[in-house]
Amino acid sequence: MREPVTILGNYLSPYVRKVLVCLQLKGIDYRIDPFAPFIGDETFSRLSPLRRIPVLIDGDFVLNDSTVICEYLEDLQPTPALYPAAPRDRARARWLEEFADSRLGEVIVWRMFYQLGVKRYLFNETPDEEVVRKAREEELPEALDYLEAQLPAQGFLFGEVGAADIAIAAFFRNAAFVRYQIDAALWPRTAAFVERALALPAFRALAAFEEKTLRTPVAQQREVLIELGAPVTANTLGNIAPRRGIMKVE
Amino acid sequence: MREPVTILGNYLSPYVRKVLVCLQLKGIDYRIDPFAPFIGDETFSRLSPLRRIPVLIDGDFVLNDSTVICEYLEDLQPTPALYPAAPRDRARARWLEEFADSRLGEVIVWRMFYQLGVKRYLFNETPDEEVVRKAREEELPEALDYLEAQLPAQGFLFGEVGAADIAIAAFFRNAAFVRYQIDAALWPRTAAFVERALALPAFRALAAFEEKTLRTPVAQQREVLIELGAPVTANTLGNIAPRRGIMKVE
Repeated sequence: MREPVTILGNYLSPYVRKVLVCLQLKGIDYRIDPFAPFIGDETFSRLSPLRRIPVLIDGDFVLNDSTVICEYLEDLQPTPALYPAAPRDRARARWLEEFADSRLGEVIVWRMFYQLGVKRYLFNETPDEEVVRKAREEELPEALDYLEAQLPAQGFLFGEVGAADIAIAAFFRNAAFVRYQIDAALWPRTAAFVERALALPAFRALAAFEEKTLRTPVAQQREVLIELGAPVTANTLGNIAPRRGIMKVE
Repeated sequence: MREPVTILGNYLSPYVRKVLVCLQLKGIDYRIDPFAPFIGDETFSRLSPLRRIPVLIDGDFVLNDSTVICEYLEDLQPTPALYPAAPRDRARARWLEEFADSRLGEVIVWRMFYQLGVKRYLFNETPDEEVVRKAREEELPEALDYLEAQLPAQGFLFGEVGAADIAIAAFFRNAAFVRYQIDAALWPRTAAFVERALALPAFRALAAFEEKTLRTPVAQQREVLIELGAPVTANTLGNIAPRRGIMKVE
């Protein structure tokens, strides 16, 4: 039996969520260090040069970037496959994962969740309403138009659920955290697809931890998650004072 | 024999350069449509939803994102391998490619090349000197410190040259376009590594086309590159009027 891997991350990050769902689907045992985004010191920079989460720690091996981590998990344990085998399908899966991580990241994480969640509740600052309005009314609809043309009417993109499906669905959890729901009248495939993906046990297993994290101040999250039965590891980075950093959540 | 693939891109983009070098090393025949970055209409948006270059067109298959394209080329034609085989090495190679595309992209492309090259010469606007100063004096040195600890004293990262080496070196061509040279006294490994990589025939074959593109107005680039013997294809997108768009170069 291999030792569990450690994920340095936070249940509210869609990039962390993508990796946790992949770990779950592959049956790879893990512990999470529920590291609060936007907070960290130089110890964290050494583990994550771009100050992003998640970080995977597998023994003495430290790896960054959610996409690179998912590809590593696929190489480490090829079944169940989370990327299709045929080169064109595989490329399209990687592209859609990139589209989600990049474009849905910009719009949902940075212009909606950050403004309405992180900025308001973690930093006690006023959201920029124009940034939020443009994201909701212009940028996200444009991304949804694109997804609507890509996603299948039933099932998942390439048969069984894979990394591209997981990446796309993961972002709409963050949209839901700030009360955005996809309008099924306008984007019926996307709305049904996201609902189908988020109903998978691997996503549902995380929901209670996400909701608890949302409602708990950063300093108490670790303790509260342990009480709730989350697979929380000892504090990887030691006690660090919260500070506003340049951290990105990817 | 397979038909040549088409690359929609520009010789000045480091992301295009990475793909062209990979094509060259794999011996895959290609034509380039020397599409000027920052310019394009809705036809381009249909081929590239994020309005980025390069785009690969392989028959009826259209693919975006330089990293996804390089992985596709690797799947299509596994030899010579441009990613190492062992999972941890492979993951580290992907991470270093991502570090280059992400961080060197932000600093070298957006804060140096864009300011001092594109903005000044394509848009006739004044560069933001503070952005450039910070990039040269703070951000790039920090990235170079990281690379210096990662790169080998001799040869390439994982034996033969691979996608990670190519990605890193490709950005320093853009640094050179705006007269930035790595200080070998401060970063001896990185300086020697980049020089070694850029001396490879696959990089050198592109240098004349890059230099000609730099010195030629956008409207004449296609014609001038054809005269110089570049493998230029017919205009994929038809004649489109230059406009300032939201395009990103990745």
